[in-house]
Amino acid sequence: MILDIIVPVSTDIWNKEVELEAEKIKSPGIQVRVTSLTKGPVSIESEYDEAFASPCVISQAEELEMNGSNGVVIYCFGEPGLHACKEKLSVPVVGLREAAVSMAKILGDRIGVISTIKSAVPRHVRALKHEVHKVVAVDMPVLDFVNVRELEKRIEMKIQELINYGCDVIVLGCGSMLNIDIKRMQNEYGIPIVIPLDAAVAVCEYLMKNNLKQSKLTYPFPPVKEIK
Amino acid sequence: MILDIIVPVSTDIWNKEVELEAEKIKSPGIQVRVTSLTKGPVSIESEYDEAFASPCVISQAEELEMNGSNGVVIYCFGEPGLHACKEKLSVPVVGLREAAVSMAKILGDRIGVISTIKSAVPRHVRALKHEVHKVVAVDMPVLDFVNVRELEKRIEMKIQELINYGCDVIVLGCGSMLNIDIKRMQNEYGIPIVIPLDAAVAVCEYLMKNNLKQSKLTYPFPPVKEIK
Amino acid sequence: MILDIIVPVSTDIWNKEVELEAEKIKSPGIQVRVTSLTKGPVSIESEYDEAFASPCVISQAEELEMNGSNGVVIYCFGEPGLHACKEKLSVPVVGLREAAVSMAKILGDRIGVISTIKSAVPRHVRALKHEVHKVVAVDMPVLDFVNVRELEKRIEMKIQELINYGCDVIVLGCGSMLNIDIKRMQNEYGIPIVIPLDAAVAVCEYLMKNNLKQSKLTYPFPPVKEIK
Amino acid sequence: MILDIIVPVSTDIWNKEVELEAEKIKSPGIQVRVTSLTKGPVSIESEYDEAFASPCVISQAEELEMNGSNGVVIYCFGEPGLHACKEKLSVPVVGLREAAVSMAKILGDRIGVISTIKSAVPRHVRALKHEVHKVVAVDMPVLDFVNVRELEKRIEMKIQELINYGCDVIVLGCGSMLNIDIKRMQNEYGIPIVIPLDAAVAVCEYLMKNNLKQSKLTYPFPPVKEIK
Amino acid sequence: MILDIIVPVSTDIWNKEVELEAEKIKSPGIQVRVTSLTKGPVSIESEYDEAFASPCVISQAEELEMNGSNGVVIYCFGEPGLHACKEKLSVPVVGLREAAVSMAKILGDRIGVISTIKSAVPRHVRALKHEVHKVVAVDMPVLDFVNVRELEKRIEMKIQELINYGCDVIVLGCGSMLNIDIKRMQNEYGIPIVIPLDAAVAVCEYLMKNNLKQSKLTYPFPPVKEIK
Amino acid sequence: MILDIIVPVSTDIWNKEVELEAEKIKSPGIQVRVTSLTKGPVSIESEYDEAFASPCVISQAEELEMNGSNGVVIYCFGEPGLHACKEKLSVPVVGLREAAVSMAKILGDRIGVISTIKSAVPRHVRALKHEVHKVVAVDMPVLDFVNVRELEKRIEMKIQELINYGCDVIVLGCGSMLNIDIKRMQNEYGIPIVIPLDAAVAVCEYLMKNNLKQSKLTYPFPPVKEIK
Repeated sequence: MILDIIVPVSTDIWNKEVELEAEKIKSPGIQVRVTSLTKGPVSIESEYDEAFASPCVISQAEELEMNGSNGVVIYCFGEPGLHACKEKLSVPVVGLREAAVSMAKILGDRIGVISTIKSAVPRHVRALKHEVHKVVAVDMPVLDFVNVRELEKRIEMKIQELINYGCDVIVLGCGSMLNIDIKRMQNEYGIPIVIPLDAAVAVCEYLMKNNLKQSKLTYPFPPVKEIK
Repeated sequence: MILDIIVPVSTDIWNKEVELEAEKIKSPGIQVRVTSLTKGPVSIESEYDEAFASPCVISQAEELEMNGSNGVVIYCFGEPGLHACKEKLSVPVVGLREAAVSMAKILGDRIGVISTIKSAVPRHVRALKHEVHKVVAVDMPVLDFVNVRELEKRIEMKIQELINYGCDVIVLGCGSMLNIDIKRMQNEYGIPIVIPLDAAVAVCEYLMKNNLKQSKLTYPFPPVKEIK
Repeated sequence: MILDIIVPVSTDIWNKEVELEAEKIKSPGIQVRVTSLTKGPVSIESEYDEAFASPCVISQAEELEMNGSNGVVIYCFGEPGLHACKEKLSVPVVGLREAAVSMAKILGDRIGVISTIKSAVPRHVRALKHEVHKVVAVDMPVLDFVNVRELEKRIEMKIQELINYGCDVIVLGCGSMLNIDIKRMQNEYGIPIVIPLDAAVAVCEYLMKNNLKQSKLTYPFPPVKEIK
Repeated sequence: MILDIIVPVSTDIWNKEVELEAEKIKSPGIQVRVTSLTKGPVSIESEYDEAFASPCVISQAEELEMNGSNGVVIYCFGEPGLHACKEKLSVPVVGLREAAVSMAKILGDRIGVISTIKSAVPRHVRALKHEVHKVVAVDMPVLDFVNVRELEKRIEMKIQELINYGCDVIVLGCGSMLNIDIKRMQNEYGIPIVIPLDAAVAVCEYLMKNNLKQSKLTYPFPPVKEIK
Repeated sequence: MILDIIVPVSTDIWNKEVELEAEKIKSPGIQVRVTSLTKGPVSIESEYDEAFASPCVISQAEELEMNGSNGVVIYCFGEPGLHACKEKLSVPVVGLREAAVSMAKILGDRIGVISTIKSAVPRHVRALKHEVHKVVAVDMPVLDFVNVRELEKRIEMKIQELINYGCDVIVLGCGSMLNIDIKRMQNEYGIPIVIPLDAAVAVCEYLMKNNLKQSKLTYPFPPVKEIK
Repeated sequence: MILDIIVPVSTDIWNKEVELEAEKIKSPGIQVRVTSLTKGPVSIESEYDEAFASPCVISQAEELEMNGSNGVVIYCFGEPGLHACKEKLSVPVVGLREAAVSMAKILGDRIGVISTIKSAVPRHVRALKHEVHKVVAVDMPVLDFVNVRELEKRIEMKIQELINYGCDVIVLGCGSMLNIDIKRMQNEYGIPIVIPLDAAVAVCEYLMKNNLKQSKLTYPFPPVKEIK
């Protein structure tokens, strides 16, 4: 069975690392394919970016389904094109945000999300307002995350801030927060930290193995029509 | 002051009528411009359609702003690209759904929405679940609405169904339900019926005249970046 | 068409200014009439005041309807008599609070309201608890608002406090906060500020022009009976 | 200690029976005084009626407090003047609706309320929407409740209707549903039925005996001012 | 009529005082019996403690019912076994938490609860999240409450903290906070303070006197079966 | 790594089948141990049953943890002892209900749960009221589920009933609904059906593999104390 991870940006700089991480956690019978986009924004930090990424994500997902995909993860906390893909595809489609938040809710009651730049926060608040306790930002653009040490330092500051605010579970609110020493932080701060990649792969594998996909009563196939 | 109405489909068959209606209700100092898209789907009946329409709507809105727009209405109950436009533009942007529902809530407590095809219902339910009491469908594709008599007949059936279900205000859940004899239906069924065009023009004019626009604290300008 | 503004206090000191403001924003075909009460409290700062103002407001509204009114605005954020008027009258009736909050919700997600004296806050919190993010007070009795400079200074302090608290839209929570330089404050603090007069006139005109009024399914005519 | 029951209508036809019922359930150390109004509507079946009753209720409550009252019950499910009395008085004030619904919530999860005329329903729905499961009406004006047999028959029909709708507790939604054989109905329909008089007397006695009253942080004394 | 108070711990050190307090507030026709458990934890400060206390509480309640009980109060804010007792018994069963919070909601809008040790807080937050504004802890184990002066000092600190946080009513969140000078604190801090014993006795007496018990539609008798 | 499944009843008739099912879906590195209780009720169909099962579940879970467990599933939709185990254990603990509902919410918006006997429904409604759309019962005691054909027939009737009611995802609300041909039903009724065993094993494996467990900020270790 093939599990596809679409990194919904027009750069492949994250693909290798995402693939390495996914390989570590996937089940034996599952083959992981990681692809990014040829068109669209280079990173997703606003609803504007999401809107321009969405049609590219959908087209990619449709193509992957034709090429044997058994399940698709949209590898971005903003989940561009998620609902449209749930409508269009016959295989399960999972977003980072819904998977991470669902798993986090089993671990505690007041979820704190750590996002990227400050202006990325309001759209997650809008999407999650009944689901999470607080969303904060490391205040770094996604493309600067290659500076892992600085990112790690800021994530730790935000973990402490969220604990002080009453949160009991942390969710990393971006797919590009990679190579972070989460195990150490969990021990040091005494709080579970959900990495969205792990949550999304677990949820997608579960759906694939159990013959489940999004309900077509709620995500009906879109009517076929002309798109100019 | 120029109020722009973007009909977010790749056909101009609705433009003339929308313009005529808007001319009737707009205030004297306001000039209405109605445009549709050159690219994108011919109608919006799914999140899939919305995703393909959104980038075209945004580009159009950006261009209209450069051409002197003072306010933009996205003329579709699905509101493709609305939040992205609220981020990107410096003038107020208003969607049919938010305007119609806001006005309806002043008139009553349990709003019933009449949508197009059955498969269009779930996405409106998802968007409005805490806001409205019930969403139903006339079960006609948008492009068949040129058959006004049939549409009118079905709308009346749905009004009765929504009243029986306990609704106290009706909202027409599509911008293309035009030429309907709403005045007669209001009298006959004894229930207020909100036409989204009227609501959106009123809200947008209000914002334009009073120097208001979406909060940049919640809809910050998107970071400038490469979009391939 | 006649739009009536009832200033629900037993003093006419605000009428002239309200009329001047309303004249500026009303549409050409609309005639504005501003009246206050001959009986009742001189200002509305508690549910106690509201209870004594309500029957006077209702009687006034009934009389104005007989004298050709096409729509009524109850010009107080506490909205004394609003629901009873919605029951009794056949023309649309709009309160400052519902109009301002409805418009504010289109501009952002976390509304901050600025009220008058501290003891006026709890009743607005009770009425708006699911609708707004925070209610604060300038801590000045309404009748001291003639000291506009002091009022302006305190409003600015409260705007900053509400922004720090996470609000993204400000609503002035009293009809008597007049002659304030809102345009400057909006620019300086980078946040939209909704003036309830403007919102209520826009909503009421919209309803009047589009032949809409409160649903009689939810605001049925009260049974005729003896009132001693 | 004196417990005052204000029947907020301008007729004393209910006073004797209310007093007899209250005498049965009150505690030994408590003296019950039942009064009605000299002004105001003869029955309360709308927000219109409530608005005209409210100032009379408040004045009466103020006078009773001066005459030694230790606690006041406003004997109407619409609770005219309740919040204003909570502000103005220094002794506890309790409404029928809040007392009955609070007690009912201890007995079950889905409360069904039986109201008077059909047009009385929407205002209770508005007040209780997050608190109760369903409000229905016996479709009889309050002043016809002297026909006890007919009233009883209709109440039984509504109990069955509410059980079928999924309710697990019944609340009689009017103070004038007197002389009903509730004990028999409870046994016959297997559902607890809350009589608002009993609940309100229990709550008010509890507050009086334990030196409790409404929080002045939320119901502050109204500012003293001129009321013309 | 016999009102039973079960102190759900395997120590009888609280029984005498609870009985004395209950004797002061109970109505004349009511006989109060106070019992504790012979098995189970010595205090209840976690869901773990509650789980081990629950079967003992239920067995005790069943036995008391056979011995003529007319109503049962489970004398712990954690309410171990409450819902199971509501299923199993034919007489009313009331928990401290539900009674105290129901009464508090009549007094104000934002309830603050004062609990015992810090680790006892999260389970009350989970149980009450939609009902109360804030839960804090005096940070003392229940068995140290015999040090009444220290307890009193810490309760006062927490009252001030809860008022600063916006609470308008205080609920003592433990049955063992006895001998506290509540009357003085109410006057000094100007906020109502609900003692759960008083609330639970009032609610239970009300149910007993009025022939009410938990709805069997929602708390059906458990199916009879083998328990090894 | 060892994943323990506790079937919280005092019979081992389900163990073999649960083990067979779990073996099919577990990941290669995971060893599954299935145990039931030696004490407690033979089936769980009420809060009464849950209360008597809980301490036995907790003791068993503590023992399994000492015997090398890396994660525990409480194999009952009523989840007896779940929160207490989350407090007491240092390894992740997962209940059937929370796992199944979390996964179902990724598949749709309106979850329908199929429970056992009618009197088992209210407690699930109470636990899930904000999470699911409807709970119904096959009206068979758990111990009759060995009659698989009858169970299957009744499940199909309930699936149709839930679809008619507007549900878009089905959750089997009992661990003992085994050997049902879910794959056929999914195809026939066009709706995803979540089997709680599969969901709970997936969630528990995810937590085990990713070094996650319930937050100790919300499920703190219970204070050590005497339990008689």
